[in-house]
Amino acid sequence: MSLVVVGSVAYDGVETPHGRVDRMLGGAAIYISLASSFFTKTRIVAVVGDDFAPEDTALLVNHGIDLEGLERVPGKTFFWAGRYSEDMNDRVTLATDLNVFADFQPKLPVSYRSAPYLLLGNIQPALQSSVRAQMNGLRLAGGDTMNYWIRDFRDELLATIREWDFLLINDAEARMLSGYQNLRRAASSILDLGPHTLVIKRGEYGAMLFRRDSFFIVPGYLLEDVFDPTGAGDCFAGGFIGYLAEQGFDLEADHIGRGDLSRAVIYGSVMGSFCCECFGVERFRTLTRAEVDARFEDFRKFTSF
Amino acid sequence: MSLVVVGSVAYDGVETPHGRVDRMLGGAAIYISLASSFFTKTRIVAVVGDDFAPEDTALLVNHGIDLEGLERVPGKTFFWAGRYSEDMNDRVTLATDLNVFADFQPKLPVSYRSAPYLLLGNIQPALQSSVRAQMNGLRLAGGDTMNYWIRDFRDELLATIREWDFLLINDAEARMLSGYQNLRRAASSILDLGPHTLVIKRGEYGAMLFRRDSFFIVPGYLLEDVFDPTGAGDCFAGGFIGYLAEQGFDLEADHIGRGDLSRAVIYGSVMGSFCCECFGVERFRTLTRAEVDARFEDFRKFTSF
Repeated sequence: MSLVVVGSVAYDGVETPHGRVDRMLGGAAIYISLASSFFTKTRIVAVVGDDFAPEDTALLVNHGIDLEGLERVPGKTFFWAGRYSEDMNDRVTLATDLNVFADFQPKLPVSYRSAPYLLLGNIQPALQSSVRAQMNGLRLAGGDTMNYWIRDFRDELLATIREWDFLLINDAEARMLSGYQNLRRAASSILDLGPHTLVIKRGEYGAMLFRRDSFFIVPGYLLEDVFDPTGAGDCFAGGFIGYLAEQGFDLEADHIGRGDLSRAVIYGSVMGSFCCECFGVERFRTLTRAEVDARFEDFRKFTSF
Repeated sequence: MSLVVVGSVAYDGVETPHGRVDRMLGGAAIYISLASSFFTKTRIVAVVGDDFAPEDTALLVNHGIDLEGLERVPGKTFFWAGRYSEDMNDRVTLATDLNVFADFQPKLPVSYRSAPYLLLGNIQPALQSSVRAQMNGLRLAGGDTMNYWIRDFRDELLATIREWDFLLINDAEARMLSGYQNLRRAASSILDLGPHTLVIKRGEYGAMLFRRDSFFIVPGYLLEDVFDPTGAGDCFAGGFIGYLAEQGFDLEADHIGRGDLSRAVIYGSVMGSFCCECFGVERFRTLTRAEVDARFEDFRKFTSF
């Protein structure tokens, strides 16, 4: 069943120990949508400038992504540049040119509004709320956020996530949001804020899923080469919600079991791991669903005992 | 079947965010033996001074640990003190008084020499070699080391581990030993150095086991409170080898499968997690095998999908 994805579309300049690319397609909405498109019909809501390249549009169209909600306005597309540390666990931002993204006011096409699934990428919480308010008939809605909103827009963020079914954040963000260093305590406290389900992403160390009555932990996939971790967390989100949408699940009504959610976390991890194998979105040009499912089985092999 | 454990016995002073203990029983041989004693008959080889307390002897005896190889000499027992960081992932050493441990020359009682299992705790590689050379009839031998030996005694260390079936080290040590940042490459390179089996401990992030043809990864157990991580890696080693000894496995002869080794990693993780629940060895005073097995089942619950 169809999924609406909201977030940034960007051009990125990225430097990792494996090399450097000055300008390539990026942004949360792109990574989320490409990942989720392997599972379910995906409809994007974002803004780009008049420099957005036809081949980038083609890549999205080739993945069956609905671009009716991709607004094109005069000006330049959001540009971000960063450099990763030797172990790729840290990065410094070298440039953030918001460009047309600065005035982004997400507008949902009428055809999107009855979609049952919604993934809100990391943008200002008030904008996330405005998108959710335009939807009717949601079965499952959730999203991502970041340290900036947690620190400087706390009340706005809390009001926003109160209406979400699930929240996907990384471990540092979970600690910042909850005030607890211990992730079990952090999770318990965050589950009091609204979401039924919390996913904590831990980069190379994997991911955790918490609900009131249970939790699930998976280690990260062990790649021989991490070329570029940019977008891995967003691809995780796309795989997670994509699988749940494909299955037609509904968290709110408790139609979804611990096993279903765990498998969604594995599919998230699978898509995040593929993302790291090449610069930017390159890996998704050739990736097949059979490869996705084979890696899902790999996870079973290296974690079962 | 019986297991010989060699390593340090110490008194430790430890400060964590949860509190401070000025002097408590510690040392690798103590943690390893207490953990392995839940699985198999354990025989300790170590040295203590004349300040070694009768109640500490009693604790070991109560766990059925053979103390014939625990040498008592005039002088003070090894003393170590350290302080952990807020997140307990780092620690600074405040004192290292080797005392009687400075002249430790491990001597194996005749009754130990035919034991089939050997765990060499972190001591000078030449001493580890001398212990192995005193054994006859080994089915499985391996051990631990640390950055100091890797950096400053490299050739001696390489000659030592060449004869081991398994090596248990942490991720930073695996990177230092191999020269590879990527753990999959690091593991592959270390398996060329002699051991058939490599276990990489990752602290709160869990553990990995590598053999030539397969690998296994488990996330760490999620405690609500980590009181004191001192000794957790040694307890992991004790649980790992203890389980293999209990089962009567033999890596050399390939009598042991991937599933057996994975379960040994889980038992290692279980014992490491219990260790962190209290200061020092406190948790082992009351721990039961039923609790150990229940936590093993917990691991299955939170990792299966």
